[in-house]
Amino acid sequence: MELWYTEDFHDGWRLSMRVERALASTRSRYQRIDVLQTRDVGRVLVLDGKVQVCELDEFVYHEMMVHLPMITHPAPRRVLVIGGGDGGCVREILKHPSVEEALLVDIDEEVIRLCSQHLPTLAAGLREEPRLRIVPRDGAEFIRECRDLDVILVDSSDPVGPSKRLFASAFYGHLHQALAPGGVVAVQAGSPFFYRDQVAGVVRDLRQEFPVVRPYLIPMPTYPSGTWTLCCASLGPDPLAVRAGERTAALRTRYYSPDTHAAALALPPFLRDALAT
Amino acid sequence: MELWYTEDFHDGWRLSMRVERALASTRSRYQRIDVLQTRDVGRVLVLDGKVQVCELDEFVYHEMMVHLPMITHPAPRRVLVIGGGDGGCVREILKHPSVEEALLVDIDEEVIRLCSQHLPTLAAGLREEPRLRIVPRDGAEFIRECRDLDVILVDSSDPVGPSKRLFASAFYGHLHQALAPGGVVAVQAGSPFFYRDQVAGVVRDLRQEFPVVRPYLIPMPTYPSGTWTLCCASLGPDPLAVRAGERTAALRTRYYSPDTHAAALALPPFLRDALAT
Repeated sequence: MELWYTEDFHDGWRLSMRVERALASTRSRYQRIDVLQTRDVGRVLVLDGKVQVCELDEFVYHEMMVHLPMITHPAPRRVLVIGGGDGGCVREILKHPSVEEALLVDIDEEVIRLCSQHLPTLAAGLREEPRLRIVPRDGAEFIRECRDLDVILVDSSDPVGPSKRLFASAFYGHLHQALAPGGVVAVQAGSPFFYRDQVAGVVRDLRQEFPVVRPYLIPMPTYPSGTWTLCCASLGPDPLAVRAGERTAALRTRYYSPDTHAAALALPPFLRDALAT
Repeated sequence: MELWYTEDFHDGWRLSMRVERALASTRSRYQRIDVLQTRDVGRVLVLDGKVQVCELDEFVYHEMMVHLPMITHPAPRRVLVIGGGDGGCVREILKHPSVEEALLVDIDEEVIRLCSQHLPTLAAGLREEPRLRIVPRDGAEFIRECRDLDVILVDSSDPVGPSKRLFASAFYGHLHQALAPGGVVAVQAGSPFFYRDQVAGVVRDLRQEFPVVRPYLIPMPTYPSGTWTLCCASLGPDPLAVRAGERTAALRTRYYSPDTHAAALALPPFLRDALAT
């Protein structure tokens, strides 16, 4: 018998992975959660039928979601992750010695529990660590109470289901409000090939709130089209002006480097034009 | 009824595209050839069950396969494409005013014929043009007779079927021999996520023959893993040292630019380490 997991994108494009066994399959208060052991690309976390995290390429996503904004900030001390219950972002954040407090706010405790159990390389970030605080709440609510954060990372699922409010333009205002002077955020924005309008919308909304907005691209084999847009925005520091030096070497990364930091920000003309306003 | 085309990669990863209709389906002397009209990603050329070219992303592949080496050469006059019967490379080559002669050598005339008929945006390059000569021969044979070429592009299918010999190390020696002093080549090498050993093999073999070897990465939604490695090698000019200026502006490109030229060459540590010898 062969078991295959298939993700269907806008009903005309499908990605399938051969599955050795389902490690967990449940429905939380918020969403359906599956953890699969695939044959060729490691373990996969699937929320509402969409791949969130895969052991094959999670290092690309988490290193680029975390280190590009963290290195852009001169010395981040207080960092918030919204979503990211798999622990990957926190794992990378805690590599920065300047960090005094890392807050992880995920609406779904069941995601955190299942990842801790089944995705050990990711959930390494969730282990008992005096600098880490995990808050099981709705990030869109929680952010209103936050102030003086240096970096906020919105590691959300796509703008359907529980993450919908994390793509609303009012939410970006709350991000701004929650930042200390010179604060930096990063969000995920979608595929530059398939969801260009969604990406353009995220960039446009961020530009309403932030003086510096820099979209950047990463390869993600397990996301639709294999390339994903993240977006860094800030109240001051510019990712384009960063000279990542000593601070980078200590991170022991597989994808992030001073070179890939700069390369990710170099948008091809077709995307640069689509995002110009 | 729904029609889907599915490509199966090493039996554990599948990409499927919804098909509106099959425009052509035939078996030539060398391979099976299909041209499909998909619902969401334009027309697709499939050889022996593998996607070669898709209207969605062909501009990325052809612009990066052609312009990065062509801009690396100070003034390419004589250019050879091996494979590339779809016409995409030739279309981009002929944008360079320095080019006096473009040779297209594809073993399979049936590919050229079907692309001319069904992939008009690509086959624009195949139209009657005094600078273009199309040679229906085996590139691995033909290259032995060539001399004094400025740029050679190996736009092959994967190292199975008729393209197998284009990945043999002796072939790279013939490439070297066919070049004028300061000549530049580019080849396709595979997925940095799935076929890293194959990519490392291509890079290693090229290093036996060329003093300058620079792998580079491009996003390719319709190729396995969504990112592909190309490799530029030369007898002198270094793609890393190029300052692409005026010559680039005239190319009217959607992916290639001085920024993406540099960005594509910035390898992430995981790949840089895998390709170091």
